[in-house]
Parts: sequence; structure tokens; C-alpha cells
Amino acid sequence: MQRYFVKKEQMTDTAVQIIGDDVKHISKVMRMDVGDEVICSDNDSRTVKCRLSNLSDTEINADITETLEPKTELPVQVTIAQGLPKGDKLDLIIQKGTELGAFAFLPFAAARSIVKWDHKKASKKIERLEKIAKEAAEQSYRERIPEVLPVHSFSQLKQELPSFDLIILAYEESAKQGEQAQLAQQLTTVAPGQKILVIIGPEGGITEEEVDQLTKQGVIVCGFGPRILRTETASLYVLAAISYHFELMR
Amino acid sequence: MQRYFVKKEQMTDTAVQIIGDDVKHISKVMRMDVGDEVICSDNDSRTVKCRLSNLSDTEINADITETLEPKTELPVQVTIAQGLPKGDKLDLIIQKGTELGAFAFLPFAAARSIVKWDHKKASKKIERLEKIAKEAAEQSYRERIPEVLPVHSFSQLKQELPSFDLIILAYEESAKQGEQAQLAQQLTTVAPGQKILVIIGPEGGITEEEVDQLTKQGVIVCGFGPRILRTETASLYVLAAISYHFELMR
Repeated sequence: MQRYFVKKEQMTDTAVQIIGDDVKHISKVMRMDVGDEVICSDNDSRTVKCRLSNLSDTEINADITETLEPKTELPVQVTIAQGLPKGDKLDLIIQKGTELGAFAFLPFAAARSIVKWDHKKASKKIERLEKIAKEAAEQSYRERIPEVLPVHSFSQLKQELPSFDLIILAYEESAKQGEQAQLAQQLTTVAPGQKILVIIGPEGGITEEEVDQLTKQGVIVCGFGPRILRTETASLYVLAAISYHFELMR
Repeated sequence: MQRYFVKKEQMTDTAVQIIGDDVKHISKVMRMDVGDEVICSDNDSRTVKCRLSNLSDTEINADITETLEPKTELPVQVTIAQGLPKGDKLDLIIQKGTELGAFAFLPFAAARSIVKWDHKKASKKIERLEKIAKEAAEQSYRERIPEVLPVHSFSQLKQELPSFDLIILAYEESAKQGEQAQLAQQLTTVAPGQKILVIIGPEGGITEEEVDQLTKQGVIVCGFGPRILRTETASLYVLAAISYHFELMR
């Protein structure tokens, strides 16, 4: 069944109001009509099945027929701090990272980031990434859309660190030196509901200077297996590993 | 250090001969010369560091200076049987799957595969995919290039099943029904050196008829977490989970 996200204020105890791009999607693309059913999430904790009761060009109304409990969110909140990569790699990271359960994405300008986001284009780019996150969240049956945060400088990233329970830094040199046990050990220290930040460098990796500054603040350096992963693959690896650890191993 | 694969017969006890596209890459792209060092793997079990001793337009010779033991192969052999997906998704699956340690790729024509590979184009497409696998294997420090097998029909796929120790079928309905423990349970039954086949349907998934036929042959149906993954994400999930299980958890 087709899934849509609505704002909290668009969902009452008994009805849902759908506005914006989704109106066109429901009536023109999916060609649905009165009586058809969709699933709506309020992007927080409420997911309902509802039946369309009224369609206009600007608004669709639906009556709630059932409250669902999808439980598709990872039991831990994982934010991916991604050093700005080249080209459209961030699109892939956000689409796949959303499918794999990321809680939020925090792009940051790393020392080796070649791409610079100028102020003008940044808000348009974030909008585009938010749209990718929304579509991936709908497709993968998420209960919430991961947040795409504005691009942070490295010092802004460091200011965010105290709000996390565990901070992991993906470090290629650890993989090369054969360090492999740290990630699994660290995940055993995390309880459901806690917040994990995973910091991943851009192409070329994180610099030694950045590693030094981060480890001084308690960040744990981890290898993600013995192979050298491209920057966009590292986030997918860690999210799948966290899902396996918290959702599949019981 | 730059890495290249050579054929077994191009590596003696003391020297390596490099031919083909890599000659141009070394001399023109990397602008290397006599005395520079590269790493070469024979795509089986031997990886060496060597120093360039002679460069011509068609051939480069190098003296072996050190035998390396990279140990970057997954301890289990994982073959990804991928229902033919749309567009260029197979490119992504093979690039990322190689980084994540896949042993081989077996594309198959599933009931819901929309794409048909005609006989003429198939060999060109496989060649292209082999090139993607080779480049990803070099970049990720693999010791061998994963094999890209020819496109199989569903009945040809079924004939391959007896050669594997564990066969897993990614099934969306399992995820929807909340089945989550099976993959982790099954991985505990596998010993290093054994062969795992992971069967993944195309967009739209595997049909009930296909599931029936496969489970009758001992294939184990598994959910890959509670979220609905796109077809190209499922292979990345299972490879990362297998790496986490066999390489990181100790």
C-alpha cells in the first residue's frame, strides 16, 4: 500500500489531510479515488491506514481506519556525519542511508573535501537531499524522515559531539593495520534509545590532524573490516552492521 | 600504493610482467617510471610489492621486493544471485558488492525481471561488469576479482544450488511479517571456508511460486531487518552483515 508523510497538524484522531506534491501523486500518478486506502505517518510516532473521502486539486481528505505499529525504526539513533564527497555521492548516501535506518545526516566540510558548497546553492541542495530522504523513507516503510542538517564546519561538528552517547570515526588506517574488533565491542556498550554519531571522511579520508582533534574529545577510531571502502560505502556498511547487531542478533 | 591484478602466468618467483590497459594507467595516468613501486595480485593467493624495472608501450616489468599478506578476503565465500534489476543498478551492486567482499555475482532472469538481456548484448554487458569488478577490487585492496557469471535462467539457478553450504533468500514478506532472527541464526551454522549463496529478487521482489520452488530445495527465507530495502540495497546489507559477523565480532 502507498505510503505518505504528513505534518502532525494534518492528522487528527480520526482524519488525515494531505496537501502539497502528494495530492498530485495520489490522484494523477497513482490514479486513486474516494474509497482507496493509503498509509500515512506523521513523521513522529503515529502511522495510520486511512480511506480517501474527498479529493480536490489542492487537498485530499481521508478517514483513519486503523492505527498501525510498523516498528521500522532502528532501536538506536544513528547520525551519519559525512565529510562532503564529490559529485552526487551524497544523494546515494542519503537514499541508501535512509533505507538502512539512519536517524539524521550531518554533512561537514572536512580538510580533504574538494567540493565547497557556496551559501547560495546550499539551501537548494539541502532541499533536494530532503526530498530524496522523504521518498526513500516512504519506500522503505520508515516511520520518520531522517533530518538532513545544514553543512557544518569541522569546528561546528566538534561542538555537536557532547550530545551523543557514542561517537565512532571510520578510519582507513585502522582497516589497513588490521584493527577489526573495535566497532563490535563499542556497539555492545550502547543501549536502545541511545544516540550514535558516525564520522566518515570524504575521498582521501580524514586527516591525522582531524583524527587527533576528535580522539582528544573521546571519539573512538574504528575499522569497518579489512577492505578499503569508498567514502559512500562506509556509511552503508556501518548502518547495516548496526541493524544486524540491534535488530537481527537476538 | 597503486594496486594491479595480473594473470598467474605473469608472476614468477622474482618478477611481474604487466600488460594490457594497466600499462597505460601506470605510465600515462600515474606517470610512474623505473624505480617506482606498485602492488600486484595474481587474483588467487599471491600479493607482492614490486619495483618497476622496465617500461615500454606494451609491457612493464617489475622486480618483486616483498611478499604481502593482505588478508582482505571474507572468510566465507559469498555469491550474490541477483534477479536482473532495471537500468544500471547492476553496476552499483557489483561495484559496492566487490568492496564489501563478494566472491562472485550470478545475475538471473527472475519472473518479475522487466529487463531482458538479449544474447548479442549479454557478453558486452558482462565484460563491462567484469571491468567494474576489477577496478573495485583494486581500489578496495581485494586479493581476487569476484567472478561475474553469465545470466542464468531460474532453472539454471536451481541447478547451482547443491554446490553451496547455505542458501539464503531475501524475502520482503519476511521483513513485513517481522521475521528478523533467521539470518543471524543461519550465519552461526557456517564455518570459515564455506560457501553461501544469497538470492535477491529484482524490483517487485521474488514471486510466491519462486519462493515455493526454492524452499523445497532447502533455501532459507530471511528478512534483512524491518525496513523494505530496494533490490540493490539488499545485497549491500547482507554483505556488510556477513562481514560484521565473521570479521568484526570476535
